[in-house]
Amino acid sequence: LTAVDRHAPAYASRSVQEQRLWQRHLEIARFGAIAPAGVNRQALTAEDMAARAALVRWARARGFSICTDHIGNLFITLEGTEPALAPVLTGSHLDTQPRGGHFDGVFGVLAAFEVLEAFADLGIKMPRSVQAVIWTNEEGVRFAPGLMGSGVYSGALSLDQMLRVRDADGVSVAEALQSLSAIVTQSESGTQPGSPPHAYLEAHIEQGPILESQGAVVGIVTGIQGIRLYEVCVSGEEGHAGTVPASARRDALRASIHLADQLYLSLDDPSDTLRFTIGRFSVEPGGRSTIPAAVQFNIDLRHPLTTVLDDAEQRLMAAVANAANGRCSVAIQRVLARDPTLFDANIGRMIEKSAHRNKFAAMSLPSGAGHDAMMFPPLCPTGMIFIPCKGGVSHSVREAATADHMAAGTKVLADVIQQLASA
Amino acid sequence: LTAVDRHAPAYASRSVQEQRLWQRHLEIARFGAIAPAGVNRQALTAEDMAARAALVRWARARGFSICTDHIGNLFITLEGTEPALAPVLTGSHLDTQPRGGHFDGVFGVLAAFEVLEAFADLGIKMPRSVQAVIWTNEEGVRFAPGLMGSGVYSGALSLDQMLRVRDADGVSVAEALQSLSAIVTQSESGTQPGSPPHAYLEAHIEQGPILESQGAVVGIVTGIQGIRLYEVCVSGEEGHAGTVPASARRDALRASIHLADQLYLSLDDPSDTLRFTIGRFSVEPGGRSTIPAAVQFNIDLRHPLTTVLDDAEQRLMAAVANAANGRCSVAIQRVLARDPTLFDANIGRMIEKSAHRNKFAAMSLPSGAGHDAMMFPPLCPTGMIFIPCKGGVSHSVREAATADHMAAGTKVLADVIQQLASA
Repeated sequence: LTAVDRHAPAYASRSVQEQRLWQRHLEIARFGAIAPAGVNRQALTAEDMAARAALVRWARARGFSICTDHIGNLFITLEGTEPALAPVLTGSHLDTQPRGGHFDGVFGVLAAFEVLEAFADLGIKMPRSVQAVIWTNEEGVRFAPGLMGSGVYSGALSLDQMLRVRDADGVSVAEALQSLSAIVTQSESGTQPGSPPHAYLEAHIEQGPILESQGAVVGIVTGIQGIRLYEVCVSGEEGHAGTVPASARRDALRASIHLADQLYLSLDDPSDTLRFTIGRFSVEPGGRSTIPAAVQFNIDLRHPLTTVLDDAEQRLMAAVANAANGRCSVAIQRVLARDPTLFDANIGRMIEKSAHRNKFAAMSLPSGAGHDAMMFPPLCPTGMIFIPCKGGVSHSVREAATADHMAAGTKVLADVIQQLASA
Repeated sequence: LTAVDRHAPAYASRSVQEQRLWQRHLEIARFGAIAPAGVNRQALTAEDMAARAALVRWARARGFSICTDHIGNLFITLEGTEPALAPVLTGSHLDTQPRGGHFDGVFGVLAAFEVLEAFADLGIKMPRSVQAVIWTNEEGVRFAPGLMGSGVYSGALSLDQMLRVRDADGVSVAEALQSLSAIVTQSESGTQPGSPPHAYLEAHIEQGPILESQGAVVGIVTGIQGIRLYEVCVSGEEGHAGTVPASARRDALRASIHLADQLYLSLDDPSDTLRFTIGRFSVEPGGRSTIPAAVQFNIDLRHPLTTVLDDAEQRLMAAVANAANGRCSVAIQRVLARDPTLFDANIGRMIEKSAHRNKFAAMSLPSGAGHDAMMFPPLCPTGMIFIPCKGGVSHSVREAATADHMAAGTKVLADVIQQLASA
């Protein structure tokens, strides 16, 4: 490091290198690459291990310390000057959906690593250690549930239970984790993970179209919306499409279609914040000339406010009760309710100030999707930084983000981490 | 036969035996029996051959002649006094749906055989031969298309093409037909089938609820309604249920639900004669938290009048055109159009008179389902006699008909066949 660097202004963001960050995305995208430009890199597979190994090589080359925990979360640490202080954690995941892209999760990991490198490049020393973390199995595709690594770390999930989870081939998480020893040896472990960090900050692509449509580059994530999932079963009676007159039918599909049409209407939100989705819709028996006997569909309802979710649920139940007065029976069951997560307002202001200082157009928004960050508000001040992704598309081989947006998000991440690790 | 029988009134119906007919249904139901009280007897399987063999044994015991044709239709003949005259044909099929019942098809075959026995019991001799026929593969489950035997007989289907049709295991119709030689030897063949009969009459369970709901025992079938099948494809864009606001969605399911709800309404028929059914409805990708990208559904539309079908099709196309103005693209394709079949009015009047004479409550109705009889109007005067089935249920192990209703339908069949064979 030169004397100039030693006396540089306090902000580490100026040392974030857009091209280095972009190249690392291309290198990680090779592990599990699928045509035309996607990635299938499911948790704890050979592809996942190869991507982790690349990070470990890069970390070793920079002299960062490396450690892991019992669920396979991987921590790359830039040591602080006061080892007794709780570290600042930042990161995301490297596992993807079966037909995923280059950025979901990966950006948060590589932005965290770039921040460590930016600090190291500038020779900045802070009281607190900064840890770039790779959470195990965020997507929950190979092993359910998702958010597994962050869930175990935070205490929301049981380590023992998670180690016993098996994939479709009968391989347990514990078994799949054995190959991790080829990447990280016990001797490399530095700080012991598992204790509450000083703060947690995660960078991520938005996975939605809002930043792009508003022309914003940095999203100040206010929290993660609550989610409620419902299963609806409509039961009628099978019959022959040619012989049973309409007056004698108990057509489960007709009843379901009418109910669903009512639901779309009655759950329309003028403020366009409520998310109401029917994703699965299955008809039994499904014969071309058979009046359907039964329909099962599911409802995915999300909003940042519990009160709004409560109100929407009431409208939902009223529509279902109304439909059940007809010829078919209708049953609804709530199968999941996850309260909204609220992120730290102070961290939000730090993100906003950094974006302003760097002249990045910024806006506040809730996260529509779940993230590892949602495990941390009970433990420590938590925040997220979003950057735009093309067309809002994610969990798709068409997922795309630009090098300059990633650099912008990483610069803000560097600034805020620097502040948090200095306090 | 006693002297009393020899001088009996002309109507053969009095010699129809309810218990004999019922017992034969129980015997045939053993071949391919499935729990709890159903039948799986697909065309040209061992079960189908065993059921045919039982009929052949009964026919031999009565001294009726037996013959077959190249598609395996089986003819049991009561010879007339004037062999040069075209015979009267009556029958149906013994093959069933995978989860079928005891009566669909079987009743028409056993009623035809009962009529032959009633004539023989009475020693009635008529100028024309009467043939009880078992048509091959009416259901079209194992080999497609259905109505195969009657279709080949009537010339609507090509024998060569049908012999080459293969089932899911690669077995051709020609190969499956080889086992028929164990049942019928060439030497047994009497009259040569294939030429236009003098008349065709088929007894069948209604497969719908109309006779039962009207308290009628005999249905005078006016014809078989026309059918038009359509495939509708709605294309939108996949998206994340949590991140994409309603305003940015191109939700193929939402568009399809709204379109289908409009279709049910706009195709409602105050006279309750039009049949409009959506039986298949499939959603892609079908993930619980994914905005659907595409929906495919099919429409089954039936009515006895072509003009009504034309009008309904116009309303259908208008609704689709209207839906296509939205965010999703909508395509509709007509994949089948079969004109309505009109049965012979004179045979209808004969059925009505016999029912009146026998004091059976009768009513006219079109057939909602397709039957072998629909192949015959181009060849000869054709008619069908329906009897009620419980709840209108058919193609189901719950299919049920009563012994007295079957006897009633068979008595009317006997009377009308007797008249037709005497002319």
